[in-house]
Order: sequence, then C-alpha cells, then structure tokens
Amino acid sequence: MTVSTSIPGYTYGQPEVAQSPISLEALAQLQETILWSEEDVRYLQMAGEVLADQVDEILDLWYGFVGSHPHLLHYFTGPDGQPIASYLERVRARFGQWILDTCRRPYDQAWLNYQHEIALRHHRTKKNQVDGVEAPPIIPLRYLIAFIVPITATIEPFLAKKGHSPEEVAKMHQAWFKSIVLQVTLWSYPYAREGDF
Amino acid sequence: MTVSTSIPGYTYGQPEVAQSPISLEALAQLQETILWSEEDVRYLQMAGEVLADQVDEILDLWYGFVGSHPHLLHYFTGPDGQPIASYLERVRARFGQWILDTCRRPYDQAWLNYQHEIALRHHRTKKNQVDGVEAPPIIPLRYLIAFIVPITATIEPFLAKKGHSPEEVAKMHQAWFKSIVLQVTLWSYPYAREGDF
Repeated sequence: MTVSTSIPGYTYGQPEVAQSPISLEALAQLQETILWSEEDVRYLQMAGEVLADQVDEILDLWYGFVGSHPHLLHYFTGPDGQPIASYLERVRARFGQWILDTCRRPYDQAWLNYQHEIALRHHRTKKNQVDGVEAPPIIPLRYLIAFIVPITATIEPFLAKKGHSPEEVAKMHQAWFKSIVLQVTLWSYPYAREGDF
Repeated sequence: MTVSTSIPGYTYGQPEVAQSPISLEALAQLQETILWSEEDVRYLQMAGEVLADQVDEILDLWYGFVGSHPHLLHYFTGPDGQPIASYLERVRARFGQWILDTCRRPYDQAWLNYQHEIALRHHRTKKNQVDGVEAPPIIPLRYLIAFIVPITATIEPFLAKKGHSPEEVAKMHQAWFKSIVLQVTLWSYPYAREGDF
C-alpha cells in the first residue's frame, strides 16, 4: 500500500482541505505536552516499514472489533439499522492510508489541515458527506477518546512481527501511542464548546 | 497514604457530589470499548500496592514536568502571572489521592459521580472554586486529552520498582493506561457541545 490519491474521499494535501483552526504553535505546545521527540519521528518511520504489508490484517482486526460491538457498529448503519457495506468499505480504504500517514507524513501544516478534515468527518459538521450515506450524524466524543485504547493496544503485536528487538518494538509502540493521543486531541476541536478546546 | 476525607476539597462519596449525567450503562459501553476486564481490576489493585508509598515521588515528577513548561504552569497562576503556591499544594494532595482512587476504588456510581466532579473542576463550570483562587478559568480540552501521555508513560518505572515480573509490570501498566483513557473520556463531558459527548 502506498500513498495514493485514488482512494475515494481521501483529500490529503488537496486545495479543498481548509486550514486548521489550530496553529503550528499550538501543535508544538501539544507535542511538548506529549513528550514528543525526534526519536518518535524515527521510530514511527520504522513502524511504517513494519506495518505497510500488514495493513489489511490490522483493519480486519479493527473491523472485527467494531463489528462485534453493536454500540460501535451503530455509527456505520443506515436508517434501516443495517450496516452500510459501501460506507464501511470506503472508510476502510482511508483508514488503511491513515495508518501509513500516521507513520510517514511530516507533522506540518498540510498534516494539521488534514487532521482537522478528519475531525470534521467524525463530527456532525461533515460526517457521512464525503461518502454520501445516511448513517448516524456523529461519532460521539466519548468513543473518539476511548478508541485511543484499542488503536494503541492492538497495534503492538503487529509491530513485533518483523524481528525487531523488544526495545525497538517498545519505542515504535510508544511513538504510535503518542501520535494517536495527539491526533485524537486535534480531532476533538469541533466537539468543544466555544473557547473550551 | 490512605483514603482520607481530610484533604481540602476532596469530596469523594459526599452528599454534595451530584449524580453524573453519564449512566452506568454508558460507562459499561465505554469499558467494552477500552477492552476493560476483571484482570485490569486485579492489576490496578496490585498497582495500588506498588504505588502507595511512591505517591510523593510521582507527584514530584509530574509537578516538575508542569512547572518546567510555562504553557502548562499557566493554569496554576494568579492574575499577577505568578504560580499560586497554596493552589498547587491543595491540588497536589487531591492528585495523590486520585492515584490511589484510580487503583483501589470500585468503578461504581459513587466513582462515576466523582469523575464528573473532577470534570467540572477542570472545566470552567467549577475550576478554582473549591480552592478559592483566581487562576485561569479552565484547563483546555486539548491538554486534558494530551495529558494521557505523560500520566501513562511516566508511571511505568514506578510500577517496576517493587520487584514484579516484566509481565506483571506490563499488565499493571496496561490497566493504568485503560483507566486514564476512561477517566479522561468521562472528564470531557462538560467540554462537549450539546449532544456531542
């Protein structure tokens, strides 16, 4: 899997993606708060190499998790209460690309802007729009934050599958954890009351 | 350090703590989402034993971290821009108790209610009130979420200090991580726009 613009709805770096309301300075302060360092950038690169050919397996695991919990699958169902297969498929392709972007992209203005686009697509501002579906109008903030756990905990065995030392696996995992918390933090912006973010 | 009601502003289980707007059913769904299990309860109990006599050292580390970052220390400063020593001290005593409560308390209605009280005390609804100070009116949502990293990452060496096996340390750390994400999720409630939590 490589960086691609042929994924439906994937608009990273495109002119239609608006500027994030969060400044690069605010991002830098968040990075200080999560103990972010150049080492994390290097280990995420390594994680990108490790995970690249495992993306489908990872998504199978995550989709299995969501699919087996009605309170989570709910956000992918239509007015008839049934899961919308085409929606799940389109999200899946972007989700796979997101794994790679998390590891490979520089965390710069373009990245920050796309984080905000992802935020809006989880929030009622833009959910369902890019995929033209009538699923529930929002992924609630509580699940956005809670998902830090499964997305962080379940990645570790995949990081360990390519023969890296336990120390390298731990550092890749740590960098991944920091990035997930950082991204969820950025995604919370549209959910917050005026002035509370 | 033991459970105590003599800590200024610590009102766990007191009648003045209002009922959480989050139901026990919603809590149970969040616990499913973070892969919570009885094993986590047991390992948090173990963590409570391990951490009990290290609470002051942990707080020294966390306070050193906040104190060395002006963008964080800011939330403990007065109108003159100087840190408010009495505020920092009062928060510290409750913070220490919170470490023990995280490990020892059953996650029941009383716990849920006090989580909401903690949420309100970070949010503009109630920040500063119980301590009678004029610090900034809110801990922004972005730092509430970002703090999942330092509070999770820095606890691991303390969990490893009492001679437990690497596997036990990892399981205590995992349970701690889940609990921190769960609590931050609950604390985000007052920050969310109507219907977005």
